[in-house]
Amino acid sequence: MKEDIIWAIIGGGHGGQSMAGHLAIMGCRVRLYNRTARTIEEINKLGGINIDGALQGFGGLELATTDIGEALAGAHVVVVVTPATAHAEIATKCASHLVDGQIVFLHPGAMCGAIEFREILRNAGCTANIPVAESNHLLYACRSAKPGYAEILAIKKDVLLATLPANKNNEILELLNEVFPQIRGARNVLETSLSNGAVIMHPAPTIFNLSMIESQHDWLYYSEGITPTIGAFAEDIDQERVALGKSFGFDLPSVRELYRLIYGVQGESLSEICRKNPAYEKIRGQKDLRTRYILEDIPFGLVPMIELGRMQGLSMSRMKLIAELGQYLLKDNSFLSHGRTLANLGLGNMTSEEFAMFVQTGERPVRHRGSPAMCRHSRRA
Amino acid sequence: MKEDIIWAIIGGGHGGQSMAGHLAIMGCRVRLYNRTARTIEEINKLGGINIDGALQGFGGLELATTDIGEALAGAHVVVVVTPATAHAEIATKCASHLVDGQIVFLHPGAMCGAIEFREILRNAGCTANIPVAESNHLLYACRSAKPGYAEILAIKKDVLLATLPANKNNEILELLNEVFPQIRGARNVLETSLSNGAVIMHPAPTIFNLSMIESQHDWLYYSEGITPTIGAFAEDIDQERVALGKSFGFDLPSVRELYRLIYGVQGESLSEICRKNPAYEKIRGQKDLRTRYILEDIPFGLVPMIELGRMQGLSMSRMKLIAELGQYLLKDNSFLSHGRTLANLGLGNMTSEEFAMFVQTGERPVRHRGSPAMCRHSRRA
Repeated sequence: MKEDIIWAIIGGGHGGQSMAGHLAIMGCRVRLYNRTARTIEEINKLGGINIDGALQGFGGLELATTDIGEALAGAHVVVVVTPATAHAEIATKCASHLVDGQIVFLHPGAMCGAIEFREILRNAGCTANIPVAESNHLLYACRSAKPGYAEILAIKKDVLLATLPANKNNEILELLNEVFPQIRGARNVLETSLSNGAVIMHPAPTIFNLSMIESQHDWLYYSEGITPTIGAFAEDIDQERVALGKSFGFDLPSVRELYRLIYGVQGESLSEICRKNPAYEKIRGQKDLRTRYILEDIPFGLVPMIELGRMQGLSMSRMKLIAELGQYLLKDNSFLSHGRTLANLGLGNMTSEEFAMFVQTGERPVRHRGSPAMCRHSRRA
Repeated sequence: MKEDIIWAIIGGGHGGQSMAGHLAIMGCRVRLYNRTARTIEEINKLGGINIDGALQGFGGLELATTDIGEALAGAHVVVVVTPATAHAEIATKCASHLVDGQIVFLHPGAMCGAIEFREILRNAGCTANIPVAESNHLLYACRSAKPGYAEILAIKKDVLLATLPANKNNEILELLNEVFPQIRGARNVLETSLSNGAVIMHPAPTIFNLSMIESQHDWLYYSEGITPTIGAFAEDIDQERVALGKSFGFDLPSVRELYRLIYGVQGESLSEICRKNPAYEKIRGQKDLRTRYILEDIPFGLVPMIELGRMQGLSMSRMKLIAELGQYLLKDNSFLSHGRTLANLGLGNMTSEEFAMFVQTGERPVRHRGSPAMCRHSRRA
């Protein structure tokens, strides 16, 4: 029963407040953690979150805290609703508090978030048996202008969920579906990772809007920023993502198809779809290049996709080009080396087959000195 | 004496009309060729070109024609004032008309224009001894709104000239300096080619203004389009150009230094310089990505620079990235293969030393079967 479940929402930004408020409005027991004290103080003054927009009401919280241990103690589901850039820090903070039976849900996982989270828990000495689920995107199109208030512009119609290890997926899905019927199961975290539209819709269009960003004009990200040529290029990048999926046996929907599934919007081109999507009408463009659309979606989105493409022998040339351009423009050459690379995810040297096995079981192949993947592979052949 | 020289200006666009009018106002004998009959008819109705702006007056022409043979017969200097995209066609058309003693001046040569022009004359069977000079940029910042009228926004203070072969340079420079004291001699056509600011100021900034271009807003190319980050990236690309020059023994001025030389404008950054340059105030931004800033300046500017970088073992990674991006955005993969590559310029397999000798003498090294450059080189070592 949903009244028995205690939810710890980690992150008090747009998405975290929207989800905390939404759950509480539905009658769930909700706690909220945020590292910024001022945000928590404001929310505690109100005693919860006011939700406006596609959904309206006040969601009272059991607890709002800057102490992650307090938020986690006794919680059944720990939902991490932060940028991917914060996942590693949160995994490190959670490691000593998590206990058997708890579930972590990265909402969303960006690309390979569950893999990274489990790897950090393991390296931090967490021995609890913690399944880590991830969704491909946030359930909400939302904005929070100030603590305690969130506007949910739209609740998406289709969110994919997978768990590492995959054999825990049905159990977790059943639990989440009680409150979120929009969530459906993916085969494994590779599928959720590859169904990430942010890598398509954020870095390249942001770069092609560079002059608009620095002009200090007010502009609308989707309805103005996805011009015909920008949309067409994004669809070309999308083909690299779909081809990568195909190489792993997935028949992934294109980004255009994703828009139909998520928002029920269709059109002749990506540019047209973005102009027609009512959930996008109010989403303003950046006024600074240094935003999540670059700082998160290149190292935590494009980079792991490029790396998996390398594993599969695919070129991913457009993705690489945009990742490199992002590095050059920001004069920060850490994206490609410090992002979610196979090495940083603990997947270095894995063969395609070993990786497929790993996402199923969560178990890394045992390596012995002098027997790297390629040797074992060729000995088998 | 300047009154004895007959000038044939090839090209009736912004630059061609500005130069024809300017020369005529100075009392020179000028002919104008353009392939579009309507332009020629309009100019013939007026009998010349009206010049406005930094220079004012009416320049009467001896002849305006669509017949290139008529324009060339008896002309002393043939000035080709067209986009680089037209050079090959014009060289082919001129080949059967040129005679010993005539001079061709590509104004400007873009990158390796004189090399291409001579190669086409040779392949077309032109046996006349024709030195081909080129400048690094156009003498004018100018616009022509309609045939017979040109606005010269500024006459640049510094234009470089070199001739293929280089030993003809002083003679041609002396002739041109009678009317154009702003022109000074470069060491050879490699120096004029490498002193091309268009490769820095056009392709990358155009791409980063993609959303501005397709928004259909009115915008100003230099004073708005060269934002701080775009300007900084252009300066990074410029370092690749300067490093390429250094590898050939040239101490090239940076693009910022070029602005001081050409327009007398200085500033802390390229972005600031572009905002401060009065000659740039009125230059509007494109409303279509398919303009010369991409279609000319990638295949005829970035591509030969990338190719020479390869000859010198330099990476040119930012230039390559922009050239590839241009191809992807325009869905035209011919830039890198059909532009001014070493092979297309007849320079394939040349060593760096052979190339340096070639720009001096205009003579290509004689190749025998089975003795490509690398073999000969290593035998010598």
